[in-house]
Amino acid sequence: MRYHKIPDETVRRLPVYLRGLLSSLKRGQENISSQGLADFVGVNPWQIRKDFSYFGDFGTPGVGYNINGLIKQINKILKLNVANSAALVGVGNLGSAVLSYPGFKIYGFDIAAAFDIVPKKIGKKVNNVTIEDVSNIRTLKKRKINIGIIAVPSDVAQEVADALVKAGVTGILNFSPIHISVPRRVKVITINIAIDLARLPYYMPAS
Amino acid sequence: MRYHKIPDETVRRLPVYLRGLLSSLKRGQENISSQGLADFVGVNPWQIRKDFSYFGDFGTPGVGYNINGLIKQINKILKLNVANSAALVGVGNLGSAVLSYPGFKIYGFDIAAAFDIVPKKIGKKVNNVTIEDVSNIRTLKKRKINIGIIAVPSDVAQEVADALVKAGVTGILNFSPIHISVPRRVKVITINIAIDLARLPYYMPAS
Repeated sequence: MRYHKIPDETVRRLPVYLRGLLSSLKRGQENISSQGLADFVGVNPWQIRKDFSYFGDFGTPGVGYNINGLIKQINKILKLNVANSAALVGVGNLGSAVLSYPGFKIYGFDIAAAFDIVPKKIGKKVNNVTIEDVSNIRTLKKRKINIGIIAVPSDVAQEVADALVKAGVTGILNFSPIHISVPRRVKVITINIAIDLARLPYYMPAS
Repeated sequence: MRYHKIPDETVRRLPVYLRGLLSSLKRGQENISSQGLADFVGVNPWQIRKDFSYFGDFGTPGVGYNINGLIKQINKILKLNVANSAALVGVGNLGSAVLSYPGFKIYGFDIAAAFDIVPKKIGKKVNNVTIEDVSNIRTLKKRKINIGIIAVPSDVAQEVADALVKAGVTGILNFSPIHISVPRRVKVITINIAIDLARLPYYMPAS
C-alpha cells in the first residue's frame, strides 16, 4: 500500500494520536470514538476522522475505532514499527536534557550514541549512554544508526550535519536555530523553540 | 483591523517568515520575492503568497514584498510589537538550555525571571537571570510577566501551571510531555520533542 499522499499536516498529527491511543490502551480500552480521542489530544473530531480516512480507516459506526489496529497502522505509516536508533551530538545542557527525556520510548526510539568535543566529558555516562569523541561519528553506519540529533552551538551545526550525512545518517532532528543544508535524500526537522514561543502572544488576551 | 480569520497553520509559519525577513533586512535587502523568501525558509512560494494574502499584503508585481513593511505587519499580527516578558519554571538541564537559548531575542522576548525548588540553586545566576524560589511565582502579575515556560518534571507540571495561572499568566510554553489543563482564556503551546522525532522516519528513505 502507498501512503505517500498523506498531507504533512496529517503526518504531524499522527504521533499525537498515537500517544493518545497508547494511553487509552493502557487504561484497558478496546475501542475509541473520534470524540473520545479528540477530548484526549485536543484536536477536532472531524479533523481526526479526516486524517484517519487518508489511510482508509473509517471506524465502525456506534463502536468507533479499534485502538490496537489503529496503533499498528500508524506505527507502520510512520515507520516506527522498525528499530530506530539515534545519535546525539552535543552533550551540553540541551543535549543532557534530550538524553534524559522520558518521551522517546513510546515511539520506539533509542538514543544509542552520544558525542561531544570536550575531552573531560568523553567516557562519562548520561542516562546509560557513554559520551564518545565526535571523531567516532564515522562509525554510525556500521552501528546501524541512521538518525542524528544536533544539539551543538549554531556556528558548528552545519559542520556536524555534514559529518552525520557522511556517516550515512538520513534523518536529522536539529535544535540549532539555523537553517542546515543537506542533500535531498536527507530529511531535517528543526525544532526552534523561539518559533513556538513567538506564536503564543497571538492567542493571548490583550492585557 | 481584525486578523482573527488567519488559519493556525499560517500563524505557525509567520514566525518562520519573520526570521527570514529579518535576515534579509540585515543583509541590506529592501524587497523580497515570494521565491526569494521561499528559498530562505523552505516553504513553497505559493504557500507564502497565500499566507500573506490573509492579511492583505499582495506585494508589488516585479518588485516583490517590502521587507520592512512586512516585518512590521507580522510583528503586529503576532503581537510581538509589545514587550513580552516570560518566566521560566525549572532550571534543570532543559531550563538552563532555555535560559541560554540565543533565538528568543529576534522575536523581542525577554526571560525576566526563573524559578526552581532546589535550595542550592536559589540566588544563582544563569545568563544574567537570578534563580528565585518557586513561592515567588505569585509576584509575576506585579512584575507584568504574563508568559510562563514550564521545564519541570511531568509529575509537577500541572501544579506549576496552576500556580502560573493563579499569578495572572495567560500564555504557557510547556516542555513536559503531558497534557496540561488550564482555563479557556489561557493558551498553552506544548513542545514535545518526541512528537517531532516521531515524524522523522516517515520522510527517510528505506535503509
